[in-house]
Amino acid sequence: MVEAILEHRSIRKFVDSKPIPSTLMDQLLTAATRASTTGAMQVYSLVVSESEEVKNLLAPLHFNQPMVRSASAVVTFCADVARFSRWCELRDADPGYNNFAWFVNGAIDAVLASENFAIEAESEGLGICYLGTTIYTTDKIIEVLDLPRGVIPVTTVVVGYPEVVPPKTDRLPLAAVVHRERYTTPTDEQIIQHYASTENSAQTAQLLADNDLPNLARVFTERRYKRVDNEAISASYLNTLRKQGFLP
Amino acid sequence: MVEAILEHRSIRKFVDSKPIPSTLMDQLLTAATRASTTGAMQVYSLVVSESEEVKNLLAPLHFNQPMVRSASAVVTFCADVARFSRWCELRDADPGYNNFAWFVNGAIDAVLASENFAIEAESEGLGICYLGTTIYTTDKIIEVLDLPRGVIPVTTVVVGYPEVVPPKTDRLPLAAVVHRERYTTPTDEQIIQHYASTENSAQTAQLLADNDLPNLARVFTERRYKRVDNEAISASYLNTLRKQGFLP
Repeated sequence: MVEAILEHRSIRKFVDSKPIPSTLMDQLLTAATRASTTGAMQVYSLVVSESEEVKNLLAPLHFNQPMVRSASAVVTFCADVARFSRWCELRDADPGYNNFAWFVNGAIDAVLASENFAIEAESEGLGICYLGTTIYTTDKIIEVLDLPRGVIPVTTVVVGYPEVVPPKTDRLPLAAVVHRERYTTPTDEQIIQHYASTENSAQTAQLLADNDLPNLARVFTERRYKRVDNEAISASYLNTLRKQGFLP
Repeated sequence: MVEAILEHRSIRKFVDSKPIPSTLMDQLLTAATRASTTGAMQVYSLVVSESEEVKNLLAPLHFNQPMVRSASAVVTFCADVARFSRWCELRDADPGYNNFAWFVNGAIDAVLASENFAIEAESEGLGICYLGTTIYTTDKIIEVLDLPRGVIPVTTVVVGYPEVVPPKTDRLPLAAVVHRERYTTPTDEQIIQHYASTENSAQTAQLLADNDLPNLARVFTERRYKRVDNEAISASYLNTLRKQGFLP
């Protein structure tokens, strides 16, 4: 197995802002661009922020998770039809990419590039962490990074030199996420079985005690990802898609 | 550089339906699940179709591109909140994941898993190709694969034993897709420069002759990805998101 894939864990403590040599950064960025891309069009952009100034502006938009400031670089992966569309206009061609299909294509392109970047970084001894907060505060990230219409952030990867390497986290058994030939809806008994090992871990016991909650599912629904927040994030991201030209 | 990343090209001719040993397939699927995932929740599912029957049903939904039938497996990567939501219900927790934010999270999870799967496959001498057609005919893919509400296809990877390995395809220069600190909108002159090598290639000359068109941009806008098609795909994918419960 590709060692970097097998050994992946999210790194949340970095050697404080230790710079990545520019030749190494270029290697990671080149790896990103070797990923598959819709129609060979590369409808994405990567914004690599390494300065204290920009990292400090981005940190609160990622809920001040400390690894944003201590990472060597914060890389914001965006769906981007602006560059391609402008090229079309310059060539007297009508670009029809300001719509939802091309948000999806651009988002897929951006995420494929991000995973190549992450794996390449890890294979060089660096550590990474994805920031799901990217879709919470997209409007403000757009302001900080000066993103024009036709460009929207999809995900962010922080990268740096690991200070603490935590153990690998658990995954559901393959049978829970893989379906053969067609989708088979699991029975309730199967679902209970798939989550059993996570539910019964020592880590979960600690979480329940800390949160004063009776089970792990309710840690997710009442603490981490609450309906009211999910609905607010949905509305704001849809609104940003509209503002950036991907929805009418 | 990770060899499989550096050497990636899309494979479109496979040794006809040569089966992948199940231990190797499990290795690829395990690699997929080692990718980063939102909140450690794995809000995705992978449908691995290897039978002639299902491949033949999927092929027309991917515009009968021949590599769908000749691949060893067609793997459909889906955003999936159904499993997680049912687990929550079984634990008396209110799952608030039937909304757009969790489509985006699930789509990111699914695409990260797909790229791990692809890189692991390539590192084992297999070839892959992404099928962008997944978002063209999503409704019908849902029918063929029996996907329940809460599940929507995002992308598809065909995997098999390469029969023909084409040369690597070009990418834009790094400077075209990478922005330092903040986004810098390129000047028209810079855009022309970034696309110059692609525009002036022998392959492009052939394309223009074949299509009787004056430039490459118009091959994209008038042949490959036309506004009218893009708008129809946008409407149908949004409609499917509604049907699957990710939009009100």
